[in-house]
Amino acid sequence: MTSVFKRLVPTFNRILVKKFEAETKTRTGIILQDPADKTAYGEIVSAGPGNFDSNGKVVPLGVNVGDIVVLPDYGGSKVNLKDGEFFIYRDTDILGVLHKN
Amino acid sequence: MTSVFKRLVPTFNRILVKKFEAETKTRTGIILQDPADKTAYGEIVSAGPGNFDSNGKVVPLGVNVGDIVVLPDYGGSKVNLKDGEFFIYRDTDILGVLHKN
Amino acid sequence: MTSVFKRLVPTFNRILVKKFEAETKTRTGIILQDPADKTAYGEIVSAGPGNFDSNGKVVPLGVNVGDIVVLPDYGGSKVNLKDGEFFIYRDTDILGVLHKN
Amino acid sequence: MTSVFKRLVPTFNRILVKKFEAETKTRTGIILQDPADKTAYGEIVSAGPGNFDSNGKVVPLGVNVGDIVVLPDYGGSKVNLKDGEFFIYRDTDILGVLHKN
Amino acid sequence: MTSVFKRLVPTFNRILVKKFEAETKTRTGIILQDPADKTAYGEIVSAGPGNFDSNGKVVPLGVNVGDIVVLPDYGGSKVNLKDGEFFIYRDTDILGVLHKN
Amino acid sequence: MTSVFKRLVPTFNRILVKKFEAETKTRTGIILQDPADKTAYGEIVSAGPGNFDSNGKVVPLGVNVGDIVVLPDYGGSKVNLKDGEFFIYRDTDILGVLHKN
Amino acid sequence: MTSVFKRLVPTFNRILVKKFEAETKTRTGIILQDPADKTAYGEIVSAGPGNFDSNGKVVPLGVNVGDIVVLPDYGGSKVNLKDGEFFIYRDTDILGVLHKN
Repeated sequence: MTSVFKRLVPTFNRILVKKFEAETKTRTGIILQDPADKTAYGEIVSAGPGNFDSNGKVVPLGVNVGDIVVLPDYGGSKVNLKDGEFFIYRDTDILGVLHKN
Repeated sequence: MTSVFKRLVPTFNRILVKKFEAETKTRTGIILQDPADKTAYGEIVSAGPGNFDSNGKVVPLGVNVGDIVVLPDYGGSKVNLKDGEFFIYRDTDILGVLHKN
Repeated sequence: MTSVFKRLVPTFNRILVKKFEAETKTRTGIILQDPADKTAYGEIVSAGPGNFDSNGKVVPLGVNVGDIVVLPDYGGSKVNLKDGEFFIYRDTDILGVLHKN
Repeated sequence: MTSVFKRLVPTFNRILVKKFEAETKTRTGIILQDPADKTAYGEIVSAGPGNFDSNGKVVPLGVNVGDIVVLPDYGGSKVNLKDGEFFIYRDTDILGVLHKN
Repeated sequence: MTSVFKRLVPTFNRILVKKFEAETKTRTGIILQDPADKTAYGEIVSAGPGNFDSNGKVVPLGVNVGDIVVLPDYGGSKVNLKDGEFFIYRDTDILGVLHKN
Repeated sequence: MTSVFKRLVPTFNRILVKKFEAETKTRTGIILQDPADKTAYGEIVSAGPGNFDSNGKVVPLGVNVGDIVVLPDYGGSKVNLKDGEFFIYRDTDILGVLHKN
Repeated sequence: MTSVFKRLVPTFNRILVKKFEAETKTRTGIILQDPADKTAYGEIVSAGPGNFDSNGKVVPLGVNVGDIVVLPDYGGSKVNLKDGEFFIYRDTDILGVLHKN
């Protein structure tokens, strides 16, 4: 996508994730992953409004923008945006959230 | 479809999308996509009334007419109308909405 | 069906559709479809009462008798009646309704 | 089944149907079907009490005993009774009901 | 099962059925089935308490102990008990109940 | 499992079953099964708290600890414990409960 | 994952499990498993907040952090963390919880 669009807001309970390559750094410059580790990690950069439950009420997402998360082995739709390659997942696909303390 | 019918209103939670070819422009004339990018984008030109939840209430759509959206890799029913080729999706298929700010 | 039965009323959320062949006309005599277009269109001639939701209430149909509609590529049960060949669909199969204004 | 049992009452939302062969007559002696027509028709001779919805309430059937109906191409369990061969369907399988006016 | 256990109570909406062989008799000694007929019949000798609906309430069975029933072509788990070979079905599998008047 | 753990409590609507081999005895010493019979029987030695229904309420199990039960032909996860080999089933898999009177 | 992140919190009804190898010890130093036993055991080290039921309410997990559990033969997503290799399961996958008394 060229310069026109600044943001992509995922729909429903989808989230936009910037995947970490092996040994890449978060935006705060910390080395996250060593090559032997096949587990996929990433940072949530944008999140949808949530899904509707069977009564039409919105169900809040189980993860948040800014979370550093463990990604499933499969799934994820690739999207190319101005800032590079991103992946769209459902929040229910995410395995876990990493915390510093 | 020849001259008789001006509008197609999708049913339930379906939407009518005009796909962007690589390097095509939106109706406001802005170049949207460079060839290397395989992600499919499009503009929503018409939307259905929404689906019914299990209590018979209408569930509002998660996207709107005029949205510039990221399309899934698969799905979409092709429909030929007076103004050319369109695609019908369910709103739940749409991955995300692009915003200018 | 021979002369005895005048009407077929579809069940639940089913509808009875008269398909348009390429270049055929609606009952008001207007040419609808040119040969290159593979999209299937038709007119709803009869509709069922609707389905029951999980609370036993009837859910109204999403289309109406007289609508000119866009049909899915697949599905539809063929039924031969006195007036010729018709197809029975579920209202949820119909992709969209064409409007003159 | 030999002479002992007079009636078969289908269970839940099932119905018992006497199929019309091509060119057979209803019990009122009217010719119903010409050979070229592959659509299957029949008369409902017995009906179950209905299914339970998710709240345990009975959902009334969408068709009635005595209806002349259009049968789906597939399905139906064959049952041999004193009066000959019958078929058991779910009411939701029935495509439509034929009416004289 | 040897002499110790007198009764088998099926669970949930299951029922215990004694199948009739061709030309066998009910316990009241009446011939039920002629060889040409492939339809399977049987008598319900024991029934479970019923299933729970989505609100945790028990849904009553659609058939009763003592009913002479029409069995589906497939399914049924064979169980050997003191009195011989029986079959366990779900009540929803049973096609219909035979009545003498 | 060695001596440390005395008890295994199954989760949700699961139950722990000690299967009877052909001609084995219950703990009260009664011969239960003759070799020709392929039906699998067992005794429930431990049971979970039950499943949640769609409203988050616990649904009571359909069987109890101490029941002598008829097992399905398939399914069951093998677990080796101090007292030997056991099998874990869902209560909904159990076909029936044997009673002495 | 290198030193930065101390904790992984699983999402929804997922749990993080440290698997016991044959003959390994729990953190309290007790030998748990002998080689012949193929059953998989592990300790829950972290748990998610729970899933939402159809009314949007959170359903509490059926197991707890610290439980020594029996794992299913299949499933589980491997995750490499600072303290080594862990597995993420859904709480509903867990077969049972071992108790000392």
